[in-house]
Amino acid sequence: MREMSFMNCDVVTKAFHRIKNYLNETPLIQNEVLNSKFSSKFYFKFEGVQKTGSFKFRGALNALLHLRERDKSQNEVVCHSSGNHAQAVALAAKILGMHATIYVPKNASKVKIMGARIYGANVILTEDRQTANAMACEKGKSCFLLPPFDHDDVIAGQGTAVFEAWSEIGDFDAVFTPCSGGGLVSGAYLASRLFSDIAKVYAVEPEIANDAARSYRTGSIYSFSDSPMTIADGARSLSISERTFQYIKKLDGFYESSEEDIVRCVQFASHFLKINIEPTSALAISGALQWIKEGNEDKKILVVLSGGNMDHDSHVKVWEKDYLESFFE
Amino acid sequence: MREMSFMNCDVVTKAFHRIKNYLNETPLIQNEVLNSKFSSKFYFKFEGVQKTGSFKFRGALNALLHLRERDKSQNEVVCHSSGNHAQAVALAAKILGMHATIYVPKNASKVKIMGARIYGANVILTEDRQTANAMACEKGKSCFLLPPFDHDDVIAGQGTAVFEAWSEIGDFDAVFTPCSGGGLVSGAYLASRLFSDIAKVYAVEPEIANDAARSYRTGSIYSFSDSPMTIADGARSLSISERTFQYIKKLDGFYESSEEDIVRCVQFASHFLKINIEPTSALAISGALQWIKEGNEDKKILVVLSGGNMDHDSHVKVWEKDYLESFFE
Repeated sequence: MREMSFMNCDVVTKAFHRIKNYLNETPLIQNEVLNSKFSSKFYFKFEGVQKTGSFKFRGALNALLHLRERDKSQNEVVCHSSGNHAQAVALAAKILGMHATIYVPKNASKVKIMGARIYGANVILTEDRQTANAMACEKGKSCFLLPPFDHDDVIAGQGTAVFEAWSEIGDFDAVFTPCSGGGLVSGAYLASRLFSDIAKVYAVEPEIANDAARSYRTGSIYSFSDSPMTIADGARSLSISERTFQYIKKLDGFYESSEEDIVRCVQFASHFLKINIEPTSALAISGALQWIKEGNEDKKILVVLSGGNMDHDSHVKVWEKDYLESFFE
Repeated sequence: MREMSFMNCDVVTKAFHRIKNYLNETPLIQNEVLNSKFSSKFYFKFEGVQKTGSFKFRGALNALLHLRERDKSQNEVVCHSSGNHAQAVALAAKILGMHATIYVPKNASKVKIMGARIYGANVILTEDRQTANAMACEKGKSCFLLPPFDHDDVIAGQGTAVFEAWSEIGDFDAVFTPCSGGGLVSGAYLASRLFSDIAKVYAVEPEIANDAARSYRTGSIYSFSDSPMTIADGARSLSISERTFQYIKKLDGFYESSEEDIVRCVQFASHFLKINIEPTSALAISGALQWIKEGNEDKKILVVLSGGNMDHDSHVKVWEKDYLESFFE
């Protein structure tokens, strides 16, 4: 097993230069009405308009490009994913002329499954997440297995979203990202340390899928035995890994969101920002709003909106109730 | 009655320079997956992220700024609106320190009504659109009445959205905008003629609110007696005006959309562009897709997405059925 060392922050800079020519420019959305209402300066980094509809393209592409730099003969990749990593691996593989096999639990978002197929991957639906993981690991014995978060190149690649935001604006007081396996928040931590020693970096999880928050609080990795069925389908991982836990330990804290607040924050993005975010992204908004309520006003806040892939069923759930007036109480 | 003359296109240029410092920059969204799928180059001008959430801010601000250039003592404005014009007038008046009274039919979008109140306007709900119109006209005898579309400065202001797109990209083969009273498409026509003599300009209406299309076909203005209850709440005007009809007569054609296709195109924007467009904006997408199906491939197409203000009830209606697979047939 490869030694697990704490990476130097400059892996994010290197990843950025490796992948930048393949990326969409994603906007850092500001909104005066919101800033005024919450006495804050929000910057929403919207990765929903990244290629494949989420930040995951960054990590997957960085890993595959780095792999091919070392060994040009590698032409097959396998992964398991609840959806966004699947699409990301599918497109990155297509760009590099590689064959991709992807195991996806059948309860994954339909939009995400369809996306991976459009990019030409061989998508195999499995009964549940555990089966997807096991089948990918088995196939990975004979080709390159690209995990969704437990890989240095994936972490460094995900960090480039936050790197871009710091490069464009700088001087954030706090950074919020959703947390599932921890790849994004680990990258966000590394990227932020390139620019500031004092900026706070927070992760946000669903209350009912709070394995990382529990791990952070107790100091040892907590794992769910079954996928927690939060509406935030990108945050259903069973646990973080030893690798991501190294960075997660260094965060300034965790916030947790109820299922209702996740839905409310998707509506928030729709009403105020006019964008379609997936429920997992709403976690970052929810965390930032909780932090502001604790007395953190007049701060510059980077909120990473991780993706915009939401299928019909999630839309229906999100709009079951109307939270509009709650934003003006 | 003021003489109704066909304006020179440069009114749009003048309007742009008058209002540009107050505007949000709105993106011209491109999407490679869509372009490849439809063998076209789409440019989506997303006015949902304009101040007040729609293009209407442009026309209202242009009219009020022009008014104050001529008479600094004017400090009161009145209007009637189904919503987006209401918010636009409210904010434009606030910026200029004017008092705004706004009559809105009670079935207007809740998001839009709330918006106008947040900007400090005196919003008065009326039983229906006809009552709103009548009350605004009555009050307008003693102050400046700013109509939603039947005003030269409003038309010129709305045209600046299309002016910006031409300035940024240029060389469009066709321009699609939704049509209600005709202010936006009239401005779009004028703006497009500044850059090209041959680019096609099309308007799109709901089938069940096709007063402008009927007027275009027959050569005389058709008026509904009651607001047609299309889901495209921004396209419920009873008729166009003599003023906008001058420009509408010169368009290259009209497209009409079924209520189902409007909903489908809102889903289209959510899935592919990751943005929240109001159903009225979906008309422009629907028209462009109809045009492409008629054999117009490999064209550069400007699609004006007029706004992003959509309340809970509209979201629920939009997601009643799932159209995802229809985009891949």
